[in-house]
Amino acid sequence: MEIAELQETLRRTYYRRDAGRGTDATFRWMTEEVGELARALRRDDPRNLEHEFGDVLAWLTSLANLTDVDLARAAARYENGCPKCGEIPCACPTADER
Amino acid sequence: MEIAELQETLRRTYYRRDAGRGTDATFRWMTEEVGELARALRRDDPRNLEHEFGDVLAWLTSLANLTDVDLARAAARYENGCPKCGEIPCACPTADER
Repeated sequence: MEIAELQETLRRTYYRRDAGRGTDATFRWMTEEVGELARALRRDDPRNLEHEFGDVLAWLTSLANLTDVDLARAAARYENGCPKCGEIPCACPTADER
Repeated sequence: MEIAELQETLRRTYYRRDAGRGTDATFRWMTEEVGELARALRRDDPRNLEHEFGDVLAWLTSLANLTDVDLARAAARYENGCPKCGEIPCACPTADER
């Protein structure tokens, strides 16, 4: 699936509700899902783990819709490898740069 | 960009580093980026906001790579609208369901 397609489908599905809830409450929902992802990482249940990844991605996308961010354009910074060193694999001197 | 393409590019770019760092430290990095997104939401700088959305998405994808989750399949739960009620727009009785 295209990132842009996911964002547009979520806009049509949830934008009215997202806008009514507002940016702060939508951010809070996203972090609640991040917490559920943390719990899923602790358990041995691949289907639940996939479910929680989908939820975090969906709430992140709702938040992008609310703030007029094009998530595909945001992701494009990574499409040619590391945005810092430009290499695949990343050749930055420290392991946590990107 | 396809979600699967982003995941594969990030795998080639960062998997070795992600694996060396481990799941817990990668999760911590993702939440650090969620914090940077929170701060960007407070400021009036659309380019920085887009940047932080990209970073959260990239770390979420790194985490999916580490845990063998197919992010496109995770997102597919939303491709036909609300996974709970099946409607576009969502017709769930309460505003926060999905």
